[in-house]
Amino acid sequence: MKYLVGIDIGGMTIKGGIVTTDNQIVAKSVIDTRTALGEDVICQDICDLIHGLIDMAGIEKNDILSVGVGSPGAIDTNKGLVLIAVNLKFNNVYLAQKIEDLVGIKTVVGNDANCAALGEYILRDTTAKSMAMITIGTGFGFGLVLDNKVYCGETYGGGEMGHSTLVFEGEECSCGEKGCVEAYASFTALHNQIDRFIAQNPQSFLANYPKKVEGKELFELAISGNKEAQILVDRFLVYIGQTVVNIINIFDTGLIIIGGGISKSSDYFLPKIIEYVDKTRFCKISKLPEISVATNGNDVAIVGAANLINHI
Amino acid sequence: MKYLVGIDIGGMTIKGGIVTTDNQIVAKSVIDTRTALGEDVICQDICDLIHGLIDMAGIEKNDILSVGVGSPGAIDTNKGLVLIAVNLKFNNVYLAQKIEDLVGIKTVVGNDANCAALGEYILRDTTAKSMAMITIGTGFGFGLVLDNKVYCGETYGGGEMGHSTLVFEGEECSCGEKGCVEAYASFTALHNQIDRFIAQNPQSFLANYPKKVEGKELFELAISGNKEAQILVDRFLVYIGQTVVNIINIFDTGLIIIGGGISKSSDYFLPKIIEYVDKTRFCKISKLPEISVATNGNDVAIVGAANLINHI
Repeated sequence: MKYLVGIDIGGMTIKGGIVTTDNQIVAKSVIDTRTALGEDVICQDICDLIHGLIDMAGIEKNDILSVGVGSPGAIDTNKGLVLIAVNLKFNNVYLAQKIEDLVGIKTVVGNDANCAALGEYILRDTTAKSMAMITIGTGFGFGLVLDNKVYCGETYGGGEMGHSTLVFEGEECSCGEKGCVEAYASFTALHNQIDRFIAQNPQSFLANYPKKVEGKELFELAISGNKEAQILVDRFLVYIGQTVVNIINIFDTGLIIIGGGISKSSDYFLPKIIEYVDKTRFCKISKLPEISVATNGNDVAIVGAANLINHI
Repeated sequence: MKYLVGIDIGGMTIKGGIVTTDNQIVAKSVIDTRTALGEDVICQDICDLIHGLIDMAGIEKNDILSVGVGSPGAIDTNKGLVLIAVNLKFNNVYLAQKIEDLVGIKTVVGNDANCAALGEYILRDTTAKSMAMITIGTGFGFGLVLDNKVYCGETYGGGEMGHSTLVFEGEECSCGEKGCVEAYASFTALHNQIDRFIAQNPQSFLANYPKKVEGKELFELAISGNKEAQILVDRFLVYIGQTVVNIINIFDTGLIIIGGGISKSSDYFLPKIIEYVDKTRFCKISKLPEISVATNGNDVAIVGAANLINHI
């Protein structure tokens, strides 16, 4: 039996797993990301993690076909090169080669959002050949699979849907520009939308709520029937919905997955988004893509990274 | 010697050419599009056009490797099927099979904007593997080559960059939605922008110009130094520039080509667009794509269509 190794490097932890060729995880583990100690220590930690996983699974090293690594940042997948990953302090790190030299197994590296999207895509029983995953978190994450391959762009700077314009000259975005999708369709943006509502409506229920209303509470209040929360959430969903429309008009993927904290409230939001998208998309003669929520399992990123070698 | 046939179906005329495998046109011709007579007559006309081209070039039919047809509308390239092409009155027409049956040569069909983009891509000496072409005309045209293939989307409804949102809830677009790129970065939009300026500034130079100022005159006035025209043109260029930024942030193509009537004024507008794009794009560590103007030759669409078979 042959296996794949998937590694998901995050700012705080590095998760790893051994995956069968039919995507069952037979061993998984997690270690701290020792960013302060630099890239060589991190690579050695990943090597030790992989050896630990091999022992845990009770398999031989030469049963492993390849190692796939998901890393934050801009990645040159062809060269296995992390061009820049700010929160790992990586700058032009040939990560694939470094890990391959230490572990002695063929290694590839891809962007973490693309690995997560790939994992969701692989673990789903879909006939779609293309898929976009948006993740509504502090920012607006975007991963893209086109014709069964992760899409990175020619110089590995593509897929920045979160920094395409939704509202020209609109709200300031963390990137320094104005009106980006992320400035409207992220939890950071939602919190600004709540703050503005409260400032403009000091007598409102939300302004006088016993604790600060953040995204999670706002969704809970909306689901429980609170009208103020529903107005804010529904407006937020229109921003997400319009972004999904743009993705469909531009890419026409067969599958769209919505992930992040929001996906727990899918009974409330998914029908609203699907209705908005179906009404607003351009090419109504084409089939409405399947739109669903992410499984959001930690394993998704591991499975995606493990399968990366067959999807680049 | 072997040849390819390229056919470009427009609402008014059908252009055809015989192209060598190194993209020299050895014969070309044009006929009227007899839309009122229906699809069968149009297919027979194309068949006759091809036979005329073969005679003109003095070659044998079996020297022709394939026929490629660019058609307006939504095209299922795999099936050679025009799903819908409103201005040809085509509805679910298996165009490739119909022409192939009449002519007896392998035939493929693609979207006309993609064929034009492919022609520009092929005729250019570029190392880029991906390219986006925008055409600023009555509408906002968009053609896309990704990894050497024309991009259509999973259900052939993709590539509608002109109907992605630039200004959420902004100007009404011809598609019935609001704030689309086409409602800001097309000559139709520019004419609205001129009309609005004139209505708001009845004492202005432009309001009192001896004839109606349309896009062409506005660009000429801007180039000749007229400040009012420059304000309007420069604002229009910002809409185009922001759209180019979005294309880069989303696709990261190695090459971006700007076509349409505007390309004649490239000395004026291209440096301005490049400056805006370089300042505004998200991933500044990636290389700025080559941005240039289309050759806009009629032959481009013929060459693109002729080569379609190798790029789908």
